[in-house]
Amino acid sequence: MTRPLRVGILGATGVVGQRFIQLLDGHPQFTVTTLAASDRSQGKRFADACTWRLPAAAPPWAGEMTVAAPAPPLDCDLVFSSLPGDVAGDTETAFANAGYVVVSNSSPHRMDADVPLVIPEVNAEHLCLVDGRRGGFIVTNPNCTAIGVALALAPLHARFGVAAVTLSTMQALSGAGYPGVSAMDVTDNVIPYIAGEEEKVERELGKLLGRAGAGGIEPARFPVSAQCHRVAVQDGHLAAMWVRLEAAPDLDDVRRALAGFRGPPQDLGLHSAPDHPVLVRSEPDRPQPRLDRDAGDGMSVTVGKLARDAGGWYRMLVLSHNTIRGAAGAAVLNAELLVARGWAAVRSEE
Amino acid sequence: MTRPLRVGILGATGVVGQRFIQLLDGHPQFTVTTLAASDRSQGKRFADACTWRLPAAAPPWAGEMTVAAPAPPLDCDLVFSSLPGDVAGDTETAFANAGYVVVSNSSPHRMDADVPLVIPEVNAEHLCLVDGRRGGFIVTNPNCTAIGVALALAPLHARFGVAAVTLSTMQALSGAGYPGVSAMDVTDNVIPYIAGEEEKVERELGKLLGRAGAGGIEPARFPVSAQCHRVAVQDGHLAAMWVRLEAAPDLDDVRRALAGFRGPPQDLGLHSAPDHPVLVRSEPDRPQPRLDRDAGDGMSVTVGKLARDAGGWYRMLVLSHNTIRGAAGAAVLNAELLVARGWAAVRSEE
Amino acid sequence: MTRPLRVGILGATGVVGQRFIQLLDGHPQFTVTTLAASDRSQGKRFADACTWRLPAAAPPWAGEMTVAAPAPPLDCDLVFSSLPGDVAGDTETAFANAGYVVVSNSSPHRMDADVPLVIPEVNAEHLCLVDGRRGGFIVTNPNCTAIGVALALAPLHARFGVAAVTLSTMQALSGAGYPGVSAMDVTDNVIPYIAGEEEKVERELGKLLGRAGAGGIEPARFPVSAQCHRVAVQDGHLAAMWVRLEAAPDLDDVRRALAGFRGPPQDLGLHSAPDHPVLVRSEPDRPQPRLDRDAGDGMSVTVGKLARDAGGWYRMLVLSHNTIRGAAGAAVLNAELLVARGWAAVRSEE
Amino acid sequence: MTRPLRVGILGATGVVGQRFIQLLDGHPQFTVTTLAASDRSQGKRFADACTWRLPAAAPPWAGEMTVAAPAPPLDCDLVFSSLPGDVAGDTETAFANAGYVVVSNSSPHRMDADVPLVIPEVNAEHLCLVDGRRGGFIVTNPNCTAIGVALALAPLHARFGVAAVTLSTMQALSGAGYPGVSAMDVTDNVIPYIAGEEEKVERELGKLLGRAGAGGIEPARFPVSAQCHRVAVQDGHLAAMWVRLEAAPDLDDVRRALAGFRGPPQDLGLHSAPDHPVLVRSEPDRPQPRLDRDAGDGMSVTVGKLARDAGGWYRMLVLSHNTIRGAAGAAVLNAELLVARGWAAVRSEE
Repeated sequence: MTRPLRVGILGATGVVGQRFIQLLDGHPQFTVTTLAASDRSQGKRFADACTWRLPAAAPPWAGEMTVAAPAPPLDCDLVFSSLPGDVAGDTETAFANAGYVVVSNSSPHRMDADVPLVIPEVNAEHLCLVDGRRGGFIVTNPNCTAIGVALALAPLHARFGVAAVTLSTMQALSGAGYPGVSAMDVTDNVIPYIAGEEEKVERELGKLLGRAGAGGIEPARFPVSAQCHRVAVQDGHLAAMWVRLEAAPDLDDVRRALAGFRGPPQDLGLHSAPDHPVLVRSEPDRPQPRLDRDAGDGMSVTVGKLARDAGGWYRMLVLSHNTIRGAAGAAVLNAELLVARGWAAVRSEE
Repeated sequence: MTRPLRVGILGATGVVGQRFIQLLDGHPQFTVTTLAASDRSQGKRFADACTWRLPAAAPPWAGEMTVAAPAPPLDCDLVFSSLPGDVAGDTETAFANAGYVVVSNSSPHRMDADVPLVIPEVNAEHLCLVDGRRGGFIVTNPNCTAIGVALALAPLHARFGVAAVTLSTMQALSGAGYPGVSAMDVTDNVIPYIAGEEEKVERELGKLLGRAGAGGIEPARFPVSAQCHRVAVQDGHLAAMWVRLEAAPDLDDVRRALAGFRGPPQDLGLHSAPDHPVLVRSEPDRPQPRLDRDAGDGMSVTVGKLARDAGGWYRMLVLSHNTIRGAAGAAVLNAELLVARGWAAVRSEE
Repeated sequence: MTRPLRVGILGATGVVGQRFIQLLDGHPQFTVTTLAASDRSQGKRFADACTWRLPAAAPPWAGEMTVAAPAPPLDCDLVFSSLPGDVAGDTETAFANAGYVVVSNSSPHRMDADVPLVIPEVNAEHLCLVDGRRGGFIVTNPNCTAIGVALALAPLHARFGVAAVTLSTMQALSGAGYPGVSAMDVTDNVIPYIAGEEEKVERELGKLLGRAGAGGIEPARFPVSAQCHRVAVQDGHLAAMWVRLEAAPDLDDVRRALAGFRGPPQDLGLHSAPDHPVLVRSEPDRPQPRLDRDAGDGMSVTVGKLARDAGGWYRMLVLSHNTIRGAAGAAVLNAELLVARGWAAVRSEE
Repeated sequence: MTRPLRVGILGATGVVGQRFIQLLDGHPQFTVTTLAASDRSQGKRFADACTWRLPAAAPPWAGEMTVAAPAPPLDCDLVFSSLPGDVAGDTETAFANAGYVVVSNSSPHRMDADVPLVIPEVNAEHLCLVDGRRGGFIVTNPNCTAIGVALALAPLHARFGVAAVTLSTMQALSGAGYPGVSAMDVTDNVIPYIAGEEEKVERELGKLLGRAGAGGIEPARFPVSAQCHRVAVQDGHLAAMWVRLEAAPDLDDVRRALAGFRGPPQDLGLHSAPDHPVLVRSEPDRPQPRLDRDAGDGMSVTVGKLARDAGGWYRMLVLSHNTIRGAAGAAVLNAELLVARGWAAVRSEE
């Protein structure tokens, strides 16, 4: 067996950075060799620099590392990035130009024509955009809301053709980072606004469900309309969704398409792959964020309340863990796919 | 000037019953003479029977009253009812049969063919169903979610024709009564289920926006699809809504139709009528329950985030105070309209 | 009658600044002529500069004002200050040196030997420190937690002698300003730390209940021990308190001392004075922040759960509205007292 | 190796009952053979009878069991009881009389002179009350608040002598069972009342820290004064505590006494024993319920904010997981101790 890839985490002190550390602790293929952050924490011990927000303590190896600046060169083969949007763009480009594989959760490059926007179960074939390259490229995962929604749409689009999507979200606090949302804003309240979120969801779904061709990714053309809201929930994004389909399957067919959905991560037995990317529940009051967000170790999306309405739309409620499947876990699964397909390897061997 | 009508409150100890007491305290046309409840509180002083849940204290006159059983005869001219659904049906019928005007917030009779389901600004003409009667009938107001939505839809339906409605709600705790929702269910969580709510909203909107004719109320025929959710908010129901219109107005026309909406309560200067049944806000993050629920003393609906999406639907966010405009205030306004139109009067004068 | 004093608000865009505006709207003695803030909002319309966090909208007159820098000269006779601690010290000194009466809610000058730390019902006589001056001085009110506690202790100290005080607080979010506490920190959680709070409470109570003499204020000498915690409550600080007394009154005497407490604001009929500075409730589950914080328009402190424990301590639960009685209302009442006693007057007449 | 004891759970559908099932799933010494409940769930499949409130799903073996009535005989060697207080008393007596070892988390028998009230690290020697018996007796654990407090007090009492204890709690929702606390009561609020709680804490601490002698348990005599409050936290009871000691140790000695505390569960290597019954943290803002409740798999108590105040009291903040260490885990650890000491064994072998 080959030695693990050495990986760096850019944005390691943030909410998603902490999830990276948690998910990579003991990972069979990746060893974290560098923690970097764009903020005042550079040069400090990670334990001193980071307000750790996850219930279990930070792994001791992480606490002892010194926080580096997020600029190449770094001592690693691959970088995960959860940098803030305003610095991620240039920084990730710099790493790609320096020959690193950049597996990013940040938004700036998601819609770039030559950057794959990938959910391994949904559109692994989009990696053709980086075909033949073993370093020096960026692979992104979608926005935390788009991921859960795309996982529920993908099997429906493949089987029945999606014609239109309407959704209203109730999103978790951790999606805004830390400190993020003021407690005064969300206690006894709902905040019906998340900057840029509705546009990201609407835009990214088209690319995700698009077709890879000679000219790049041809986006899917169905209209998407999203209204996004923040609620007082720690983790777990809910989306109440209506889907219009080209075909008119009965609900059992829809349920089977969702529950039976699988993709390359399951076929390849990737380390972070859940047995079921989509779980379908039949109780009238599920999924619920607190009870269901950790399904499949946070990597399964749960769909419930499946119904067909008077207007012929299929409606459902979709829950995903926004910092695991919706962020750090998404990137880790992308990296595992890159390794399995041979796109990412130990750099020093090149 | 004539003396005030003497009114009774059925279900006085509940969350909506307490709002009735609050709204009728000092009311120029109604004097509360009887408090009744279906539960173990009968025969007790109201102050002892009721766990008062509103911030300001109960009016002293209410505290001293003895809770009666909700059965005719009661010493009053008109009864307000917020009885639980399982007892409201028969009880309200008994009062109507005994000659009382029953102004009900409860659900059992809302869809009865001979019972008006009324929001005064929306469909005051539906009171033709009780034309000529001065006692012995029931008038209902809609479900707390349907009211806010109907107030936003009514001016659009009148001007542009509503073709379809899709909505996702984030509803307040007080809508479930007291004790209602378990704190364990809603802390760090969303409950995506409210028994019967989606059906009520879908059903009642058709009747509300229907046409009064010789054969009764002809319901509006557009499809309505609702997904309802409970969030950790004390008061104030939010509905993220998509409306398909027959016409294709630009957004300014839609805004003007909403903001300029008025009806009989405003024309008649009814005591509980807000100046503006619908307020339109232009900030990207409003309305919010905590900040906007008390607009117009809880009787105005606030609409925000008005937009037209890629699929041609008009979308908006609608907030209404669920126990004032959505319940007790709705019934009081109905009663004020009945008095103004001469359908309710002092019984002892008959 | 003389014309109202013209007042400025330093720190007008903050949580307490907004309460100042709310409380001074329509005040019979004060007209707000200047809004100032230390932040990026200078030069903007207040409506554009300020994220208004109170349920009712900002008064239109405030929205139209241009935010000034907090430096003398300003066009007013008196300044209220709720500046952040790091800028309040020098700024307030500058205003006092320039001849302004400074009525401050900020902490830097509270313990200065020549600055009165005043709650009008508790220690109005401490104003002797500014005796003879009509401008050019600072008067402060205590920390938001100390105020409620001091109002409950004052009548006990006067009648029975306080020998020791132990308290554990559950404090509201608004006490931290806006944005203040991260929602991630306080949802499904308690934060057992508020920087400097325990020290402020312990220190300020001694001065508040101290004796004014020739040499200044001789602080009361009893030990105070406070543990402070932040909970997910919008407004209203709770303090579970144990008081050791020199005397051994029975509980009815303690209750009477609390409920009968009054002071100069009540005697002088000051505009913002509550009828009862201390309300005593006898239910086992009161006071509660949501239900009782607005008692006396937020100017009354509510005491409940009065008992004597096995160790001979008197224990009680004390609630006060932290941004009204505990901040802006405290300062306004101080200013009203200064006017009534002749220490503050229209400057242009001097 | 002997076969596992077969155990029954009385009150299996409740919040604590569900924790029993979770903790006993895969337990090396106990096999759950019976689930019983006092409510309407008897005769149903557990999966149908129980609203499972824990994030991970119920173990399949539990879901398939049929809920029995809580009355002897049941097919098991030992019963765990988390029955409601009003039925626990007689039911547990009936089981004990029928020869069962009853390991109870319920309150009725805790103060019985012949019933051990045990926390294994604190007072395992109190089991002398059941000396020589192998069945037919009741062993109880304390109230959920008393357990955490007693674990922090025990090493201090042993080393320095406790002279008095004062505490103010902020308790979790799960302590009230399900549905328990109304969300209307605790959203944007604190409920300063938990029926019977203050008395239980004050009473049980004396017995727990008492001395086992010929005449039974001689309770410790120091006064305890508790004020108890409910906050919007799912799990984890916080207690702000002041302790007066007979000796005057410096803080390092206190810290060492707490951090070094261990007892029979650690010495015997009991399955559910945490490595450290008491963890001491030095950050100013810990412990916090959400971040620290699961320390030691919910079996460690976390102490922080250790200080000595001006009055000479030692103060600290104590957190314990109220349904694990404070309830189900407490009982399981008691049962493990009984097995290790030979008081509980397979009944069919007798």
